[in-house]
Amino acid sequence: MVSDGGRERGGAGRRLVPIAWDATQAAVRLIDQTLLPTELRYVDVRSFDDMREAIAMLRVRGAPAIGVAGALGIYLGLVERTPGSAFRVLEVLDELCPRMIEVRPTAVNLSWAVNRVRQAVERAARVAIGAQPPEPTDLLAAALREALAIADEDAEACRRIGEYGAQFVPDGGRVLTHCNAGALATAGWGTALAALYVAEEQGKRFRVWADETRPLLQGSRLTAFELAEAGIDVTVICDNMAASLMRAGQVDVVIVGADRVAANGDVCNKIGTYGLACLASMHRIPFFVACPTSTLDLSLRSGHEIPIEQRDPREVTHGFGRQTAPDGAGVHNPAFDVTPSELVTAIVTERGIVRAPYGPVLAAIMDAARAE
Amino acid sequence: MVSDGGRERGGAGRRLVPIAWDATQAAVRLIDQTLLPTELRYVDVRSFDDMREAIAMLRVRGAPAIGVAGALGIYLGLVERTPGSAFRVLEVLDELCPRMIEVRPTAVNLSWAVNRVRQAVERAARVAIGAQPPEPTDLLAAALREALAIADEDAEACRRIGEYGAQFVPDGGRVLTHCNAGALATAGWGTALAALYVAEEQGKRFRVWADETRPLLQGSRLTAFELAEAGIDVTVICDNMAASLMRAGQVDVVIVGADRVAANGDVCNKIGTYGLACLASMHRIPFFVACPTSTLDLSLRSGHEIPIEQRDPREVTHGFGRQTAPDGAGVHNPAFDVTPSELVTAIVTERGIVRAPYGPVLAAIMDAARAE
Repeated sequence: MVSDGGRERGGAGRRLVPIAWDATQAAVRLIDQTLLPTELRYVDVRSFDDMREAIAMLRVRGAPAIGVAGALGIYLGLVERTPGSAFRVLEVLDELCPRMIEVRPTAVNLSWAVNRVRQAVERAARVAIGAQPPEPTDLLAAALREALAIADEDAEACRRIGEYGAQFVPDGGRVLTHCNAGALATAGWGTALAALYVAEEQGKRFRVWADETRPLLQGSRLTAFELAEAGIDVTVICDNMAASLMRAGQVDVVIVGADRVAANGDVCNKIGTYGLACLASMHRIPFFVACPTSTLDLSLRSGHEIPIEQRDPREVTHGFGRQTAPDGAGVHNPAFDVTPSELVTAIVTERGIVRAPYGPVLAAIMDAARAE
Repeated sequence: MVSDGGRERGGAGRRLVPIAWDATQAAVRLIDQTLLPTELRYVDVRSFDDMREAIAMLRVRGAPAIGVAGALGIYLGLVERTPGSAFRVLEVLDELCPRMIEVRPTAVNLSWAVNRVRQAVERAARVAIGAQPPEPTDLLAAALREALAIADEDAEACRRIGEYGAQFVPDGGRVLTHCNAGALATAGWGTALAALYVAEEQGKRFRVWADETRPLLQGSRLTAFELAEAGIDVTVICDNMAASLMRAGQVDVVIVGADRVAANGDVCNKIGTYGLACLASMHRIPFFVACPTSTLDLSLRSGHEIPIEQRDPREVTHGFGRQTAPDGAGVHNPAFDVTPSELVTAIVTERGIVRAPYGPVLAAIMDAARAE
């Protein structure tokens, strides 16, 4: 979370920091990602409602970054309402947490992070029972501490994911990625792209194909932007071009992120991921998923149980300020799809690399995480 | 080519006519397809250069329609230059034909149609040798007659393709299509979409998924527009959504057009077709290609010999009047890909339905066509 005008020095280029807490301003400093790739603008978010709006409008996006944003948003909401007692803090929490979580229901990191803040505050309140009643400000401090801890842990997890994942980036090879699982999606190095940043630090030379990722073009707007900023050779393609590149032997490996992973290793990620996994399988190209363990949701037995958010049809029909489909046609706009674990070569987490059969090892990893 | 303000009454709705010769205006009347789906504007093309521009800018597009446009463009060029002798007509032809063909080098229909006009004029010139020297106006009339014959034959071929293809449209089912192989792509009913128009006339009820088809969105702009105009239930999806629909059992059949078919049945069509064919194969969904025999190019043994046009990177990065990729990134923008014939369930032509092994039957069909 250390910021250099919002950028950190990476290997060859500069790595962007999309979300940071600015204590002097009492504000969350965000890159407004809806303005990329032509404008790098920072916005200071100071209220709960503004943070909800920023998450809903995808000014901040990417599962881990949404978690950090949601956690900090809860803190902002507590401060705004200036609760006069510890009891009142808990009442406000009860009101704020569900309202934050509902903004992006599929993103498990959002509810996970919001609930971590809630539990930290409740813990701080509980300790004090029977002793002096806790000061509301102590509880607010606990909320902020927890939100910042989530951010720091995420940056550390990203770094480790990158170290585990870098081995799958072939020197002299070509990597294909989808959507943005990069620094812009996290509080740190990204997940899928962390593997690239670490590989680049290791001196590997490689090229990246970035799927533009319709409808919101996170691949061309964000992934291509942050890789180019970091000095990595990146080429944008439309989503429907990946197959012919694979057939031409121009793709050595696919690495993507995840929004949610079920107990059996099924992966929910940006729409289009499943199709890519099918194509990689047909062309015998390894297909890796990189994600922090906070993305694992072992309460879901399989991908069939993952709710898929339908988004505004206008993202498809008016995505670029111009109407591109007739009024008389319907629109189907799911935000995510589910890739069955059979199509996943390995899942790279900050706690190691998991291969099929996924169930037992994912469970063991989560047990180890809880035991710490 | 009979026009009702550019539309023809179809079954339930209205079928658009994208290109027609207006003898009273001595002009080719085109729908400017770059303005769809929000504006239905007709433009009158009166010169060779304007026709080249219309083809290059995709105001008229789709293999058969490009052929008709190119043929009529040659006629316009001959008229403009008012050649004073039969010999001069042939000289002008020598100059115009290659210049027209080079505008869209991958579209075999363009060179095919232009060469038909050329041969018709040369035939008309030859017949006269030893007799009265032919009048230049007779040769120009031969050029126009041939161009209009190409249009009429195309409309007739489309209708027959539709009649053969309609059997593959399941009543109560769901059809997925890519790009625009519709009325807007031809002088008649379209190819892939002709099957839908005929099925609809037969009283079948079905739904259509239209891939939006990046980068130029022919699927959302054109296919969705013309199907909605015809009263057919159509839903637009982004290209990367097809796979998850297939997995969910929401696609019963895929029908696409073709820009060029090689002797072994390999199909060159809009970028993204190959990926769709892979996905259809993986999900055991039949994959049909509908095209007139003018699209067959048996001089090519396989798809490996088909040149793939690379188009302007700005179609990907600035496709909607707004920059969507950073300046620092490369862009890959092939117009077409090649689907190997193993992935094609059948090729539907106006001369019947061809299944694997494609080679012998495609050759027989072309022999029969030549013998007529």
